[in-house]
Amino acid sequence: MTITAAPLTAPLDETGPTTRCRILETAERAFREIGYQKTTVADIARTLRMSPANVYRFFDSKKAIHEAVIKRLMDETEQRVIAASAMVGQGVSERLSNVILVLHRACVERCDANPRMHEMVEAAVAESWDVCAHHIERIGSVFEALVVEGVAGGEFAVADAALTAACLHTAVLRYCHPTLVSQYPDAGVPPVEAMIAFLLRSLRGPA
Amino acid sequence: MTITAAPLTAPLDETGPTTRCRILETAERAFREIGYQKTTVADIARTLRMSPANVYRFFDSKKAIHEAVIKRLMDETEQRVIAASAMVGQGVSERLSNVILVLHRACVERCDANPRMHEMVEAAVAESWDVCAHHIERIGSVFEALVVEGVAGGEFAVADAALTAACLHTAVLRYCHPTLVSQYPDAGVPPVEAMIAFLLRSLRGPA
Repeated sequence: MTITAAPLTAPLDETGPTTRCRILETAERAFREIGYQKTTVADIARTLRMSPANVYRFFDSKKAIHEAVIKRLMDETEQRVIAASAMVGQGVSERLSNVILVLHRACVERCDANPRMHEMVEAAVAESWDVCAHHIERIGSVFEALVVEGVAGGEFAVADAALTAACLHTAVLRYCHPTLVSQYPDAGVPPVEAMIAFLLRSLRGPA
Repeated sequence: MTITAAPLTAPLDETGPTTRCRILETAERAFREIGYQKTTVADIARTLRMSPANVYRFFDSKKAIHEAVIKRLMDETEQRVIAASAMVGQGVSERLSNVILVLHRACVERCDANPRMHEMVEAAVAESWDVCAHHIERIGSVFEALVVEGVAGGEFAVADAALTAACLHTAVLRYCHPTLVSQYPDAGVPPVEAMIAFLLRSLRGPA
């Protein structure tokens, strides 16, 4: 399998921390172009013009490379979500809406850029659940902090902020999971804005 | 591949409507025991001691058999959902809760009985979306009728019953989709009862 080689901008240093990054960049490109299942460590090493043994100095296995690649994508989404949750000058409902929109858009953009994204996520769910659990936990804590803030400010009427945050996160799964977003027809699914409005009504509490 | 043969209780009649049922029962068992992907029409015919040509008299393709099998399972769930939605002597919130519980339990029971259930559903999503869309529509119309009833009785405060029903249905996907229910760890997912309470708060409207 041939993976598009990244332009070499510096002389090769096969021991430094940049080698780790180059392995991850090449792996990410391979997973995108060839697919996660079909990519081998030998493919990645060949593209980087290094020996598989050198790749294994940085990563124990293809699974370890995959975990690092997917963790990097998740970290990036988490940074965007945290930024949306902390936007100055916006009320808590607006920031909560934006957090859900950012999660949804990050997923759509990622699936558009990489039509095999869902394959990577399915492999992560099956083989590397800890990485997924960590991501769910971190996004969940952003939801929870916003719910707590909304309750403190009198905007939300919620008894258990952690449980409510988990409900919110679970309720928007259809908009934030690469398999559901990229492999399922939209038919029957309300626009994300309608779902956000529906969920905010619950947070504001019963009459 | 060998599929467990159903006991023969009547002499073989390879032209009657019961043959259609026997093909579906054998196919369902094969999809459960061997898996949807690995089962062939020849396997099904061999188990029934008939020629593949006879199977093709009833169904054009393996895909057509699969669609009929999955439609039968969906019909069964729909019947249970309709029964829960029409239960005499229960308020609309209680019936709506029970509809979601029935959807969830039907999914859990089905996945427990058939650990390959998600494979059949993934094939249906990829190859037979119309069957899935039809099911989503029918469950959605049960949700919608309950929302309309709740609004008419003053229990719910909702502007667009159809949109609200779609939000409800989409929000509980995590509890009713065989892949999510059987292949994903529960970690981070609130109990279905907590999700139902969260969603009912939205229906009752903001303070």
